[in-house]
Amino acid sequence: MLKTPYLLFLGDAPDQLAAKVAQGIKDWRPQFCLGQLRLEGCKADLGLPDMSLEEARAAGAQTLVVGAANRGGIIAPSWIETLVAATRAGMDIASGLHNRLSDLPELVEAARQAGTELFDVRVPQQAYPIADGKPRTGKRCLAVGTDCSIGKMYTALAMEREMLARGMQATFRATGQTGILITGSGVPLDAVVADFMAGAVEWLTPDNDPNHWDLIEGQGGLFHPSFSGVTLALIHGGQPDALVLCHEPTRTHLRGLPHYALPSLEALRDLALGVARIVNPAVEVIGVSVNTAALSAEEARKCLEDIEVRMGLPTVDPFRDGAGRLVDAL
Amino acid sequence: MLKTPYLLFLGDAPDQLAAKVAQGIKDWRPQFCLGQLRLEGCKADLGLPDMSLEEARAAGAQTLVVGAANRGGIIAPSWIETLVAATRAGMDIASGLHNRLSDLPELVEAARQAGTELFDVRVPQQAYPIADGKPRTGKRCLAVGTDCSIGKMYTALAMEREMLARGMQATFRATGQTGILITGSGVPLDAVVADFMAGAVEWLTPDNDPNHWDLIEGQGGLFHPSFSGVTLALIHGGQPDALVLCHEPTRTHLRGLPHYALPSLEALRDLALGVARIVNPAVEVIGVSVNTAALSAEEARKCLEDIEVRMGLPTVDPFRDGAGRLVDAL
Repeated sequence: MLKTPYLLFLGDAPDQLAAKVAQGIKDWRPQFCLGQLRLEGCKADLGLPDMSLEEARAAGAQTLVVGAANRGGIIAPSWIETLVAATRAGMDIASGLHNRLSDLPELVEAARQAGTELFDVRVPQQAYPIADGKPRTGKRCLAVGTDCSIGKMYTALAMEREMLARGMQATFRATGQTGILITGSGVPLDAVVADFMAGAVEWLTPDNDPNHWDLIEGQGGLFHPSFSGVTLALIHGGQPDALVLCHEPTRTHLRGLPHYALPSLEALRDLALGVARIVNPAVEVIGVSVNTAALSAEEARKCLEDIEVRMGLPTVDPFRDGAGRLVDAL
Repeated sequence: MLKTPYLLFLGDAPDQLAAKVAQGIKDWRPQFCLGQLRLEGCKADLGLPDMSLEEARAAGAQTLVVGAANRGGIIAPSWIETLVAATRAGMDIASGLHNRLSDLPELVEAARQAGTELFDVRVPQQAYPIADGKPRTGKRCLAVGTDCSIGKMYTALAMEREMLARGMQATFRATGQTGILITGSGVPLDAVVADFMAGAVEWLTPDNDPNHWDLIEGQGGLFHPSFSGVTLALIHGGQPDALVLCHEPTRTHLRGLPHYALPSLEALRDLALGVARIVNPAVEVIGVSVNTAALSAEEARKCLEDIEVRMGLPTVDPFRDGAGRLVDAL
């Protein structure tokens, strides 16, 4: 569990897209964000107050979150001086990049001396149990996709926001590094050892109030040969009561696999329902979430209408329309 | 890859069952087994020559394989002296037990001095790629089960033996610690990090001669909530051309999960075929392998006949009948 509030470190991000993790934190957890720290040459700007380490610390910042990636997705050598200084100023550091904070000897030593912590959120922070498949109290919703990287996290976060705005009990449960940085906790599921995947998801979504909903971040895809096992563990560990189907209508093949076509929404519905019923016979598909960013407003409207008629399910683009109709369907 | 031949270490196994790993090696790879080494009080006997370390080494033994488990499945403190002596005698050591050879400082130091190796076969020995899902040359057969521990390894080994006896090209591909110790190589799939499971299986079953069959050791079960993700990664990484359904007719619930009934063979067939077709549209279920050890000969015959009629598939108990009819069906 990361300590809040955060100072978001943008490094020398060459453009706004390179700071998309920081942008996600600011969009979904603005209350965690005190300010941003940018190095010389940084081209990203979140519209947060620019703060020095000293200013941020004085304002109460607990954790410096590495919210940008350079080419290669690693911690740049030019950043290390700032990370060490943040540690010396008394802040924890959190990163989801490929190389680890804990592999930087200078930083490890500085953190040891300062008594602060380094969080590599790609690395499981604890041992997880083997799943026992027992029913749990409370409700769970999981987004499953026709492909990876198709809007599953966005959908779950948008549903959580809408539910909290309505006064419902809801918690987004992060299963990937970006989600973990956004919410401050979760399970980096793709880094968990095979035998413990489903158990990690059970651990993440424990017994809860009967009216409480976990909005579980999806991973991979049942039809994606590289990552389908992760997805099935998520379904069997999560025991969802509700599934949301996620889709991107212009994508022509699976991400990274040009020789695999995307499955249809019907095929996804049938397979996901079939395997989810093994652990929760009452599970239902409650709606479709479509990422229409590549379409014009008119094309998007038509696309959503067509899918809604075809599937007989509420169909929205949560970015354009919000997630209200998905929440209604719960 | 373990170096052969082996000296099989039975420790002070309290009964024959405690030496079942060694028994498996002797049953399936007798040509690897020079002899057995038993400590005071050992109640197991494989019928192999009893050898001292010196005798085994003089006879050419390359690896001492820990082939027994005490209660708890750990390397017993009373065994360490023998393991250290084997190392000093110039042998590698291989173990599939829960605690690691590499965590025993005395043994690690002895192996360093002797220049020998310690193989904890539960621990992945290398980094695996992310699966790319591309078709590969050669043929692959995978056993899938209505539950865990239901005869999948036995079935694949029996098919391999039958195929080799017929002069066919066939290789058993181990995916668990017992299979790895039996054959000397493989992937400990349940210990692989989630993102790399399917890639590890692709790595294990690479391009091969068009007439060559990999007999892939199954793991877990698609209907077993604790381990289903491992099974799906095995199916999607293995791209099987042929599936064999494995079943145990007297089991009343999933192993370790009394609140889950076993699925029917029909349900297993439909789900396994559905997900396997994603990566190999030509996949077929070619037969059923039933573990009838709990039945009388007469009950077993009736059970196999009933399933054969019901499923319309060759149905055998490979332990009673051999795997000939399954191989015919390939």
